[in-house]
Amino acid sequence: MKSFHPTVRTLMGPGPSDVYPRVLDALARPTIGHLDPQFIVMMNEVKEMLQYAFQTTNELTFPVSAPGSAGMECCFANMVEPGDKIIVCSNGVFGIRMKENVTRCGGIAVMVEDTWGEAVDINKLEQALKDNDDAVIVAFVHAETSTGAISDAKALVALAHEHDCLTIVDAVTSLGGSELRVDDWNIDAIYSGTQKCLSCVPGLSPVSFNKAAQDKISNRESAVQSWFLDLNLVMGYWGQNTTRSYHHTAPVNSLYALHESLVLLQEEGLENSWKRHDENHQALKAGLEALGLSYVVHEDDRLPQLNTVTIPEGVDEAEVRKRLLNEFNLEIGAGLGALAGKVWRIGLMGYASRKENVILCLSALEAVLGDMNANINKGVALDAAMVAWS
Amino acid sequence: MKSFHPTVRTLMGPGPSDVYPRVLDALARPTIGHLDPQFIVMMNEVKEMLQYAFQTTNELTFPVSAPGSAGMECCFANMVEPGDKIIVCSNGVFGIRMKENVTRCGGIAVMVEDTWGEAVDINKLEQALKDNDDAVIVAFVHAETSTGAISDAKALVALAHEHDCLTIVDAVTSLGGSELRVDDWNIDAIYSGTQKCLSCVPGLSPVSFNKAAQDKISNRESAVQSWFLDLNLVMGYWGQNTTRSYHHTAPVNSLYALHESLVLLQEEGLENSWKRHDENHQALKAGLEALGLSYVVHEDDRLPQLNTVTIPEGVDEAEVRKRLLNEFNLEIGAGLGALAGKVWRIGLMGYASRKENVILCLSALEAVLGDMNANINKGVALDAAMVAWS
Repeated sequence: MKSFHPTVRTLMGPGPSDVYPRVLDALARPTIGHLDPQFIVMMNEVKEMLQYAFQTTNELTFPVSAPGSAGMECCFANMVEPGDKIIVCSNGVFGIRMKENVTRCGGIAVMVEDTWGEAVDINKLEQALKDNDDAVIVAFVHAETSTGAISDAKALVALAHEHDCLTIVDAVTSLGGSELRVDDWNIDAIYSGTQKCLSCVPGLSPVSFNKAAQDKISNRESAVQSWFLDLNLVMGYWGQNTTRSYHHTAPVNSLYALHESLVLLQEEGLENSWKRHDENHQALKAGLEALGLSYVVHEDDRLPQLNTVTIPEGVDEAEVRKRLLNEFNLEIGAGLGALAGKVWRIGLMGYASRKENVILCLSALEAVLGDMNANINKGVALDAAMVAWS
Repeated sequence: MKSFHPTVRTLMGPGPSDVYPRVLDALARPTIGHLDPQFIVMMNEVKEMLQYAFQTTNELTFPVSAPGSAGMECCFANMVEPGDKIIVCSNGVFGIRMKENVTRCGGIAVMVEDTWGEAVDINKLEQALKDNDDAVIVAFVHAETSTGAISDAKALVALAHEHDCLTIVDAVTSLGGSELRVDDWNIDAIYSGTQKCLSCVPGLSPVSFNKAAQDKISNRESAVQSWFLDLNLVMGYWGQNTTRSYHHTAPVNSLYALHESLVLLQEEGLENSWKRHDENHQALKAGLEALGLSYVVHEDDRLPQLNTVTIPEGVDEAEVRKRLLNEFNLEIGAGLGALAGKVWRIGLMGYASRKENVILCLSALEAVLGDMNANINKGVALDAAMVAWS
């Protein structure tokens, strides 16, 4: 068995996205102990910069030492007690996963189902809240990675609070890419991932909990069913003290990488990052539409960092992705769940949201689809993108 | 906030240990998609090389995408059902953690307590098995990182099987450093970590399950309480198929690192690695004893990769560690739990188990202790180490 040397790819799928070169450099710095004073200073900086990324002053803000799915489980395992009724708004794969989490924590999931590709319908949530006045938490996905739809987190949270429910929000794909204001919007518990718009390597899940969420957790009657994710224990390590008590061995080098990606976010400015994601989305959209591809999600609910488009008639979608990967080292995403085989998901996340990636994707798609005799409009995509940027 | 540049340390604590430079190089290779065909080839190689490290042909062998504590939880959450009686042999911090895991899974933990610093007493386990003929699993720690004691895994597993119990074994500190033969010893479920004798970065937990363990899991009446760690789901991604179904986003770059550390293990040869750990331990031991320090663990039960020694009388142990770190960039470990403040834990794990580290540690200890007027024997440690190697 020999060392593994991956080909350099351009990552324009649903994540992981292109990682900033500076983040890869940081990742490879010498490993130090997880209780080293230097490491503890770095951890404090990570916390502070995550607070900036989430736009929160929540003390309980830190990265879970595992991927976004574990961040989701961290929120549910700590917040949900057996018998709790949880309203889950589901409009894609990750809403379904939330339901799984509720059930496995012994909670009762009341599902509010929306069509895949649409935003969460606030009226349906209102009806569910009226029908279930014993519900204690509302959970929903801010940015559905399986469909490319964004929901109105601010309004959904406000409505949940009117009905005395706490909120759990999935911000895996939105953090750093779309407007997200944890404190202004009063989000109680939130989780994200490092491998999307933060353009860090996959493997960590930033989370944040406000005072109300912490109260719910500290007033639990039953122990949190996960030792690894029990916030009462984790906070002995990630809490405010300068002396950290050992809980588990932190993923030291991955945290170097997250630190660097947050330094980059701070250098760019959060609002500038949101703006960049939107501008490159507009250019890609103009180009894709010029090619004749159409978006699955209504314009009002479209996630700039994840562009879900239908596949031209008669085209073997897997063959297109394969050719993009093999000939141009360009990864775009397949459909997932209900949209499997029906769409492509083209990501413009974090460092991948660059002009050069937009035109690479448009020209590669045009070349491959043209070569496969698909019915597309040739020679117009680049012009449309340039007009959008101008 | 600025980029983080850690000082280069020599890591001779209880882990993380020094990471092989080739592993850090691999870590920083370009991120590719977690469903990329190249990545899937690499995953298969990781599985195969983990089977070699564990000395097993178990199909269900893969790295959990989170640190060793999550690997422990993966074993317990999948193997233990509510009401199951589990015998836990505890002789340190990680036995206690096993109990926490059993309880949080709804199991009943029967504790077999041994003195910290001693191996698990097989007679006590036998008595517990006789007293609890309804027990279904025996769990114990092969190499207790909190004390430096190794237990006779082969004998303990054989005894458990005589009483129709399955076994869960913690091999976090033993894998790659001490003899461990999963198939020959008939271990049913086992977990480890990447940051000890594999000398990879922290953040992954290799696990392996045999047929009997898999049967226990697939015959469960209740769902596994963790979605993230549910083996029925994880295996859709890590299983034998060439088409992987998405479960969670794999920590791509950390897996590059693990791959490289396993290539290194294969190049050295597993038995050679065990031998190297033992030889450098003998030299360190000779030097530490020449200095006048004494081991906590009886010679027969001593873990070569973790040397737990008492602190010379009147010495401020924290001050010594601080000086070693600040003046010589050398990290050694403090005591944990019942041994806090009473011992040092000096690791010789993986890449850290090198001759240059042994003499650095001995000379730094001699210099600092001498400077603090501790009652030690000066000028003899290096000679003793050299004799041990010769």
